[in-house]
Amino acid sequence: MKTIILKENLKKGLDITEKITTKNLTLPILNNVLISTDNNLLNLITTDLEIAIKYWALSKIEKPGKIAIPAKLLSDFINFLPEEKINLEVKNNILHLDCKNQKAQIKGQDPEEFPIIPKIETKDYLEIKTTPFYEGISQVINFTTPNQTRVELSGIYFDFQKERLKITATDSFRLAEKTLYFENKINSDLISEKGYSFILPLKASRELLNIFSEKEGERAKKIDSKKIRIYFSSNQVLFEVLFPEISKPQIQLISRLIEGEYPDYQEIIPKKYETQLILNRNEFLNKIKTASLFSGKTNEIRLKAVPSKKEIEIFSQSSELGENKSSLSSKITGKEIKVSFNWRFLIEGLANIRSSEVIFEMNGEEGPSVLKPVGDATYLYVIMPIKAT
Amino acid sequence: MKTIILKENLKKGLDITEKITTKNLTLPILNNVLISTDNNLLNLITTDLEIAIKYWALSKIEKPGKIAIPAKLLSDFINFLPEEKINLEVKNNILHLDCKNQKAQIKGQDPEEFPIIPKIETKDYLEIKTTPFYEGISQVINFTTPNQTRVELSGIYFDFQKERLKITATDSFRLAEKTLYFENKINSDLISEKGYSFILPLKASRELLNIFSEKEGERAKKIDSKKIRIYFSSNQVLFEVLFPEISKPQIQLISRLIEGEYPDYQEIIPKKYETQLILNRNEFLNKIKTASLFSGKTNEIRLKAVPSKKEIEIFSQSSELGENKSSLSSKITGKEIKVSFNWRFLIEGLANIRSSEVIFEMNGEEGPSVLKPVGDATYLYVIMPIKAT
Repeated sequence: MKTIILKENLKKGLDITEKITTKNLTLPILNNVLISTDNNLLNLITTDLEIAIKYWALSKIEKPGKIAIPAKLLSDFINFLPEEKINLEVKNNILHLDCKNQKAQIKGQDPEEFPIIPKIETKDYLEIKTTPFYEGISQVINFTTPNQTRVELSGIYFDFQKERLKITATDSFRLAEKTLYFENKINSDLISEKGYSFILPLKASRELLNIFSEKEGERAKKIDSKKIRIYFSSNQVLFEVLFPEISKPQIQLISRLIEGEYPDYQEIIPKKYETQLILNRNEFLNKIKTASLFSGKTNEIRLKAVPSKKEIEIFSQSSELGENKSSLSSKITGKEIKVSFNWRFLIEGLANIRSSEVIFEMNGEEGPSVLKPVGDATYLYVIMPIKAT
Repeated sequence: MKTIILKENLKKGLDITEKITTKNLTLPILNNVLISTDNNLLNLITTDLEIAIKYWALSKIEKPGKIAIPAKLLSDFINFLPEEKINLEVKNNILHLDCKNQKAQIKGQDPEEFPIIPKIETKDYLEIKTTPFYEGISQVINFTTPNQTRVELSGIYFDFQKERLKITATDSFRLAEKTLYFENKINSDLISEKGYSFILPLKASRELLNIFSEKEGERAKKIDSKKIRIYFSSNQVLFEVLFPEISKPQIQLISRLIEGEYPDYQEIIPKKYETQLILNRNEFLNKIKTASLFSGKTNEIRLKAVPSKKEIEIFSQSSELGENKSSLSSKITGKEIKVSFNWRFLIEGLANIRSSEVIFEMNGEEGPSVLKPVGDATYLYVIMPIKAT
């Protein structure tokens, strides 16, 4: 193999593919990125056996070939290089890199040992807008945790209808749901009248976010694609992004799906409320955090709303430390209420709501409550009160 | 006790005093800040029995008194309050706080249990400029580590002469020395013709930096004092900063000193060199970091300089991973040299040199080398080569 590639292009590919190659002592080949030539593109592949990521980079191929190289070492090395062309050449399974006044030789692994990435058979796909898809995942992903006894909760639930997609996550203590409405109904046989759904494992969901993530501060998106294609089979899914300029895949993420049936969670989303609050998000967050200092091990903070007043009270107490009481102006509709919540769950829910005002709808001391943004009916967060001690 | 204080003033005092109150299970009183009234000032005191910090804050005292309060809880609570006046009142050893729509009650400890802070008897002090003093400490502090067998190396060495102060740290593998020249000779009996020196423990040195630290990004100095006073006795030192407006102490840091004699390190600072390099600091750093990737467990990277050439070579090799060779333009004077260094020590030395070009003076494969800034003769970093493998 012999090729010339811009540092920037190789770096982008390694940023996207490297993360899933963690130190694997039993199968060290999985620490590697498989680099091969594919016509006039350089193809990078990594896998952890559950997820595979393929990336194609523009490059000048002088001689075809392939090699498997420790992904982290290569990525770290490339990061230190200047923004120039890099010459790559494989000789005797050693990768020779040459870039301005930097040369390196990296020992390769046998590329034949690299696992075969399964192919998805279907040629049918759905195509949706990338940005809301990415944002929807990021608004629910923190509420999924690995769950041994209920594996179906260990992933994010994607529920397609012809006119919308619901993205849902729950850890059984709280639940977040984001709805994306399509501009045009999906006109594909993939979505039957009953819809189509799958559960994507947490790790694959995280990698999807990683691919589209913006670097802190810089706001330099790794990938700038307006649309993402989704191919699915019974037990796998493939997400694909094309090059902006040419009609060829630039990135593919292939993941197995979680088997099992997602709980019929619509039942627990309250359709009405006994008490409704409209609060300033940041002030509410500030008061919850202050109360959390005195909440002790139970994480319990108490909330009191009286409709005749124009403010709510937040209270917490610890026999060891002391107590805190604060008030917060609020529109209050419905019944008077005294109710306790785990402050951590409230803060985590508010963290995913970006509007300056939030709606908090409650159903007594024990019924499920709903947090949602003012002016955006596409997101909701369901939280259960805790029994007052 | 009853007092009114601006949030900002109380916060500044807690930021400075709170850090040394770590969770202490055997002596829980040390988790507390002792708050007492002192004429028209509020006095905060914390101690870990080795160091004590005293802070005085402007406030309106309505009733004198004192209380010992968990420092971290109080600091966390204050941080969430708006920028307003806070009413503080002690009733039955409970601190009542009231600030706009926030109220809290924090349970106090018995203030009589709080350790007595020893007083320094001398009234004589030295007064030096704060900024260079702070910067000098920060340029050497990372080379001190706790050392059980040679306790005298567990601190920073302050060596005063009438015309200058040398601040030195070493872990026996490398050594950094900063010299501060005074604008006017110190005219005090405290400094004899032989000079005066002491060894300040690492933790007290860190707290000194903490007091004068700038918040990341904001560049908001905690304390804006141009001069610092130093009082010393045989086994203790007191650093004092006055209020900018009034001639009263605002902060005092009292620390025990490390007993023992600091090594006569001047012997190991080379006074001449066999080879001298002048290098671009950032490029040198970049090449060392790249080479570090291939250096393996020994941390060894090799450097080669030939005076007839205008560049040096940096090389590293690992039987497992591969190798890296880079070149870097340099002014080279003196003998040809091939020498190995621990890359970590080189990087840490360069981290404390801020000039765009650095001087690297070497004395063969085994003699001590010196790194120093171009254009600043007040700082030097001595590093020993490692024997090539």
